[in-house]
Amino acid sequence: MASQLRFISSPKTVAPRPGVDHGPIHIVNAGIIDQLKGLGWNVEFGGHHQFEEVSAESDPPIGKLKNPRLVSRVTNAVSNTVSDHAKQGRLVLTLGGDHSLASYGNDLSQFPDATVVWVDAHADINTPHTTESGRCQLKGCLFPSDELVLPGNIHGMPVSFLLGLPRDEETATLSWVPPVLKPNKIVYIGLRDVDAGEKKILKDLGIKAFSMHEVDKYGIGKVVEMALDHVNPNRDLPIHLSFDVDALDPTVAPSTGTPVRGGLTFREGHYICEAIFETGLLVGLDLVEVNPTLADSISIEQTVKVGCSLIRSALGEFITRYTKSITERSRGD
Amino acid sequence: MASQLRFISSPKTVAPRPGVDHGPIHIVNAGIIDQLKGLGWNVEFGGHHQFEEVSAESDPPIGKLKNPRLVSRVTNAVSNTVSDHAKQGRLVLTLGGDHSLASYGNDLSQFPDATVVWVDAHADINTPHTTESGRCQLKGCLFPSDELVLPGNIHGMPVSFLLGLPRDEETATLSWVPPVLKPNKIVYIGLRDVDAGEKKILKDLGIKAFSMHEVDKYGIGKVVEMALDHVNPNRDLPIHLSFDVDALDPTVAPSTGTPVRGGLTFREGHYICEAIFETGLLVGLDLVEVNPTLADSISIEQTVKVGCSLIRSALGEFITRYTKSITERSRGD
Amino acid sequence: MASQLRFISSPKTVAPRPGVDHGPIHIVNAGIIDQLKGLGWNVEFGGHHQFEEVSAESDPPIGKLKNPRLVSRVTNAVSNTVSDHAKQGRLVLTLGGDHSLASYGNDLSQFPDATVVWVDAHADINTPHTTESGRCQLKGCLFPSDELVLPGNIHGMPVSFLLGLPRDEETATLSWVPPVLKPNKIVYIGLRDVDAGEKKILKDLGIKAFSMHEVDKYGIGKVVEMALDHVNPNRDLPIHLSFDVDALDPTVAPSTGTPVRGGLTFREGHYICEAIFETGLLVGLDLVEVNPTLADSISIEQTVKVGCSLIRSALGEFITRYTKSITERSRGD
Ligand SMILES: [Mn+2]
Ligand SMILES: [Mn+2]
Ligand SMILES: [Mn+2]
Ligand SMILES: [Mn+2]
Ligand SMILES: [Mn+2]
Ligand SMILES: [Mn+2]
Repeated sequence: MASQLRFISSPKTVAPRPGVDHGPIHIVNAGIIDQLKGLGWNVEFGGHHQFEEVSAESDPPIGKLKNPRLVSRVTNAVSNTVSDHAKQGRLVLTLGGDHSLASYGNDLSQFPDATVVWVDAHADINTPHTTESGRCQLKGCLFPSDELVLPGNIHGMPVSFLLGLPRDEETATLSWVPPVLKPNKIVYIGLRDVDAGEKKILKDLGIKAFSMHEVDKYGIGKVVEMALDHVNPNRDLPIHLSFDVDALDPTVAPSTGTPVRGGLTFREGHYICEAIFETGLLVGLDLVEVNPTLADSISIEQTVKVGCSLIRSALGEFITRYTKSITERSRGD
Repeated sequence: MASQLRFISSPKTVAPRPGVDHGPIHIVNAGIIDQLKGLGWNVEFGGHHQFEEVSAESDPPIGKLKNPRLVSRVTNAVSNTVSDHAKQGRLVLTLGGDHSLASYGNDLSQFPDATVVWVDAHADINTPHTTESGRCQLKGCLFPSDELVLPGNIHGMPVSFLLGLPRDEETATLSWVPPVLKPNKIVYIGLRDVDAGEKKILKDLGIKAFSMHEVDKYGIGKVVEMALDHVNPNRDLPIHLSFDVDALDPTVAPSTGTPVRGGLTFREGHYICEAIFETGLLVGLDLVEVNPTLADSISIEQTVKVGCSLIRSALGEFITRYTKSITERSRGD
Repeated sequence: MASQLRFISSPKTVAPRPGVDHGPIHIVNAGIIDQLKGLGWNVEFGGHHQFEEVSAESDPPIGKLKNPRLVSRVTNAVSNTVSDHAKQGRLVLTLGGDHSLASYGNDLSQFPDATVVWVDAHADINTPHTTESGRCQLKGCLFPSDELVLPGNIHGMPVSFLLGLPRDEETATLSWVPPVLKPNKIVYIGLRDVDAGEKKILKDLGIKAFSMHEVDKYGIGKVVEMALDHVNPNRDLPIHLSFDVDALDPTVAPSTGTPVRGGLTFREGHYICEAIFETGLLVGLDLVEVNPTLADSISIEQTVKVGCSLIRSALGEFITRYTKSITERSRGD
């Protein structure tokens, strides 16, 4: 595993509710950089990404895509930066911001065999044709219906773009996204709010998903083992971990845009991160959807702290293992 | 499994604290009927049962039974209605109200091989002779003692009636209850507040119970499997699920009459319902003891929502399975 | 197992924050003595220990030990009392107070084969040389460093004293502590805040520890089984259970001096106690670190109740087992 860590903060993204932009700034202010240095990482941080503003008037929906030009510009810029650093052998940590096409596109390009562990309450696998309702009238659409749908948020679609699913004139703005992901290379943990259209895609493509039902059935230890067995049976392929904080229960991470009850506990979330780190195969990490405008100040502080703590767990903080280079901190800080 | 669902609301029952009567009304007002239609069920709902009032003066205790005439009248009426619908092949959902002799008596009569999964903090297996303290002076009583006991609530006794345990002049008012249940046909999940007299009955009759100790020891997935292995080893017998919301932890379902700490989590409660539904063997369902008078409005709303959500989970809502007929909703709604 | 229970209350100890002294008084006032009598124990309680005050001026630090004379005097007095009662075949329950050298030293002397199950967020295995920072300049110190350290709290060191680790002039005040513990005789459950120096000791001595990571990975049932397999493979050796309430999550036991997030649930804490009781091998029990000055009155009451409830679980309260001599109480009281 790399000892160089490139820290990417992408505070300007396009969220369904404004404010998720500030998540990375809060996490940095909470001291994550020093915490990671304390864990022995050689951390590079170039400051929060600055993006040219795109006014709403100049970015009307294209088909069912909301803010397509802004999302495309932001994610493309982030993706190129990620790509540059990944090429130089650095582990890239991307802080969102929303769960649209952040880092994974281009770090996966560097690792053709890479597998993705997607921890989320949601599958984020809508296409522009399934978004919001799973109903669509477009010719050739897999989900025919007699109703028009409203434009959907692209942060509910990134997996479909990475899989190369939406390919028509409507998605031309995002056609630069490399279709780097194969359905057997991604596995979900934590799902509990999945649209009908998404379920059909998951089923048709045979994508493996461990919903909360499976977490309850087998326990988180066994679920992580089964998830890795599926995408990484010999534990020899690079792993990108994409962690949406809404995978956690809203009592644990309340400041997020689309909370759903019945989520992962504080401990389960950290367990996943620790177990992925333990493999020694991590090449990229996203921590997204911390939205510090959505709650009271106690909830915000709680969510930001959990975000920091998850990042540290994924990057080597471990309670009972003695590692010289790791500043010892408690799991619960 | 039937596709016809008969929805029975029994708001008038006899609770230790008034108010549990209104539980079904809240659950219906929260939209459960449409939610179940959305899951593909052909739902019949004939309105909330109306019962003739019985004044307290005209219903003095008989021995240790409180309100015996009223309880008998209400449960008999509900039971007959359940019986009628079960005979016509409908799956019967009964909303309480308290956990006295609601539906199971007569739907079990339609299914001689049926097994009962009883999810509850309590065993509800007191007899009039064991109730409240396990001490009794009646001749022939299994639990001799030198103290008199006060009249007990019948909602702590339904299992004993179904097993045919109390059979003397004192229980004549309820002698119509069919002794349809064999001790090896019922299994408990979630027990954590069991009277001494009840423990003796459980032990003497060899009734299988998975208390919270076993849930902690094995995990909920294994416990449900073991519970079904016990009563339904070949997964070929009809199942009646009787779910008392006080099985859940009071932090999850606060508005109930006899909350006990250390209960099932939100997720475990839903897991049980989903796992029972998955068997395809469900023939009857009770959801009882939602009492909307016992807490602040936030707690009430929380409890009513959990009640609706448990019902949906037991009737086919499933997160990662793609089923055309099911409106997709999130587990946490 | 003994039927005689000696109840030792050690309210005067030396905590990092004053107030932990009052924990035992609150627990006794909450009725624990009668509760234990109700479980069938012949309980002796000689009142709360009274200790001569030692003024701060007359007890300056010795090296890195804070309050060494006072701690030594208190723990020596408690230890001798414990020893006397253990010799007479009584099970000794010690209420703290802080987790300094309370009872175990001398009850272990009575049971040369005894094993210790230490339930705690912390390892409490610092030596005077590792305390607070794991850095030390003393000659021969295992943890050389170029920085001086401040005096440390002895309640973070008891395991190291019992193992006989610190043996120099600095620790002469506590040299009466018998080095009765072998590294393979102690096992930890619940760790999540361990200092670097402690991790090194745990590793060097090969001490088995189940942190929260393992609890998440295997479930509490399996963890207790593995812990006992390690120290007590044939389930034939005496067990001392030392339970620090900070092992529980702060949402469960908020009134404690050093709370750490991500702890044991209410149910897991009770499960451990029940499972240890089930072995029939318990010879001593500590319940420590309930500090009723550290929170609002609701949190205090909650913590005191949990303390009582854990003690009852460790001493025979069991939900589904019928035992004539046990007054039936619910797990959640
Ligand atoms: Mn997401
Ligand atoms: Mn999400
Ligand atoms: Mn009940
Ligand atoms: Mn109940
Ligand atoms: Mn301790
Ligand atoms: Mn501790």
